[in-house]
Amino acid sequence: MTDPRLTALAATLPASVPFTGPEALERRAGRPFAARLGANECGFGPSSRAIAAMREAADTAWKYPDPEAHDLRRAIAAHHGCDPAHIGLGEGIDGLLGLIVRLIIAPGDVAVTSRGAYPTFAYHVTGHGGTLATVPYTADHEDPDRLIAETRRKGARLCYISNPDNPMGTWHDAATVHDMVAAVPDHALLLLDEAYVDLAPDGTAADIDPADPRVLRLRTFSKAHGLAGLRVGYAIGPAPIIAALDRVKNHFGVNRIAQAGALAALADREYLHHIRALNDASMGRLVNIARDNGLRPIPSATNFVAMDCGGGGARAARILAELGARGVFVRMPGAAPLDRCIRVSTGPDPEVDAFAAALPDALAAAR
Amino acid sequence: MTDPRLTALAATLPASVPFTGPEALERRAGRPFAARLGANECGFGPSSRAIAAMREAADTAWKYPDPEAHDLRRAIAAHHGCDPAHIGLGEGIDGLLGLIVRLIIAPGDVAVTSRGAYPTFAYHVTGHGGTLATVPYTADHEDPDRLIAETRRKGARLCYISNPDNPMGTWHDAATVHDMVAAVPDHALLLLDEAYVDLAPDGTAADIDPADPRVLRLRTFSKAHGLAGLRVGYAIGPAPIIAALDRVKNHFGVNRIAQAGALAALADREYLHHIRALNDASMGRLVNIARDNGLRPIPSATNFVAMDCGGGGARAARILAELGARGVFVRMPGAAPLDRCIRVSTGPDPEVDAFAAALPDALAAAR
Repeated sequence: MTDPRLTALAATLPASVPFTGPEALERRAGRPFAARLGANECGFGPSSRAIAAMREAADTAWKYPDPEAHDLRRAIAAHHGCDPAHIGLGEGIDGLLGLIVRLIIAPGDVAVTSRGAYPTFAYHVTGHGGTLATVPYTADHEDPDRLIAETRRKGARLCYISNPDNPMGTWHDAATVHDMVAAVPDHALLLLDEAYVDLAPDGTAADIDPADPRVLRLRTFSKAHGLAGLRVGYAIGPAPIIAALDRVKNHFGVNRIAQAGALAALADREYLHHIRALNDASMGRLVNIARDNGLRPIPSATNFVAMDCGGGGARAARILAELGARGVFVRMPGAAPLDRCIRVSTGPDPEVDAFAAALPDALAAAR
Repeated sequence: MTDPRLTALAATLPASVPFTGPEALERRAGRPFAARLGANECGFGPSSRAIAAMREAADTAWKYPDPEAHDLRRAIAAHHGCDPAHIGLGEGIDGLLGLIVRLIIAPGDVAVTSRGAYPTFAYHVTGHGGTLATVPYTADHEDPDRLIAETRRKGARLCYISNPDNPMGTWHDAATVHDMVAAVPDHALLLLDEAYVDLAPDGTAADIDPADPRVLRLRTFSKAHGLAGLRVGYAIGPAPIIAALDRVKNHFGVNRIAQAGALAALADREYLHHIRALNDASMGRLVNIARDNGLRPIPSATNFVAMDCGGGGARAARILAELGARGVFVRMPGAAPLDRCIRVSTGPDPEVDAFAAALPDALAAAR
């Protein structure tokens, strides 16, 4: 069912969406999940200071948000030791990906990503009429050399990599990232998605000059800061690209309560350490649960563990369905060979307990 | 300062933004405004039930929002007596305007609006490479006949009108709107922005079939519901257009606290009556203040009054600056002949008092 007034591009776009929310699955099942471990959220919750700031901001929800997000952008810039001209705010990394693709990819332009990487990037490239070129993962890692080679070969305008990676959880050290940045050809911008870097081992985050014209980094308050519900992400990069965001974005898109919550969360460094400790402990539990059940946990620098189920995508999908039927929400990668895995987020002990309890039966039922 | 990797379109876009926030003006002045009466916000604040819902939702801000906004969309659909397939949610009307323009306007396509009407529509048309065609207001009203005639003449794909109108506050009755809908040519979609219709006299809102393919209506929680800070707007219209929104939007764009607040606000019909009474009383005060100072208040069906200052744009701009210097934030239309007016929002008595106190001096100083 289409409409003749849609643009030629809009009329061709598929109806598929990047993710089905757990709420939709709960509505279909007619009951809530016992464990919500599928969206790489921070089930430990946000900082109490962030909650207090959001509650206080609720009273002034009648005011439009500051379209410049002045206070939050300055705080982020100070955190990174740079000028606010290098910081662009958006409605989560998802919102920023849409704007950046729109700015760089005209119909027919090529964007490079890894086969099975973050689907929302691919969604926006398709949505703006771009052509997606993909390279395979190498040993469950995104492959910087292959990504750069494909970017050169296709004359691509955008090259996307996440470090640490989603959906596999694997990562490269800072030196490897620096080598990749050095290899970016002039015609391309490297999009370095660092959504999970706050949770990664020291030495993962590359120390990149925000003014470096070759790379735009993406960060979020959705993961380590536990504020996925607010939709606040930011880009760090060259001022001309950051300034261009202001020419296309919805200036009031990051809402008032979101700005207040993110500002308070950024200031609470102690809570971030607390979350890292909780996350590491939960990750350890997930690794053990995987091994106890004959699955191979893939080493992860994030808040989730990809567990190799030793079959193909069909088997992992059956396990996923059986877990769902037992009240456990997890997800899985969307492309082979990554899709031999299920992807389980860290979370509070009762939810991990529910996963541990459901997994043996789910594996048996999926056989 | 541009970047060679930007698309040809992105490289040509102007750096101007639709609105400068009052916060930016306060930062420049080095002090807060005593009266925030420039952005047509609801200074009376949102319903206490909405505030309670937002505060409660803050505790679960670690969860992504439901990307389908199932509960809110169903509640809105029930409110309008239609199927949810006719309701599309977005980050305020601003966010929806961006998506709709993207779906309908390819580079070179024409969109029609009134000269001096809502600048964010024009911003998005320019941003997507469209050509803007404008017609003048007639006696401070948007002119349906001229808009439709220009839409036909130019073969335009979009025709935008707001009813009641912003920035003038004038309105057409439902019968006039129905006549306009009947005249929309096949090649065009009528965008009927009803941001202020909850505050308008009975008989203003046209009873339009949500399935009518000729028109898409836009509503918001920013005005009568007092939730401008949340960024929740919605479109009511033909299912194929609503479905197309899902192919380009940021699915998690309307945040979790925003969905909760809007849902509670929609249910609190009593508060809406209360706001209408407060708004009418404040409007009466603004009308009297204008007259007492020799300005002509233009009859309004909104939460603001355009006051004809009897000169041109330069004089109104001086009055605006003098009011700003006296701690009073108001705005003015951006195009002649509307820009002979200043536009003052309703609000709590102390803020209206501050406006009343500042106006005589501001008028004198602007002479």
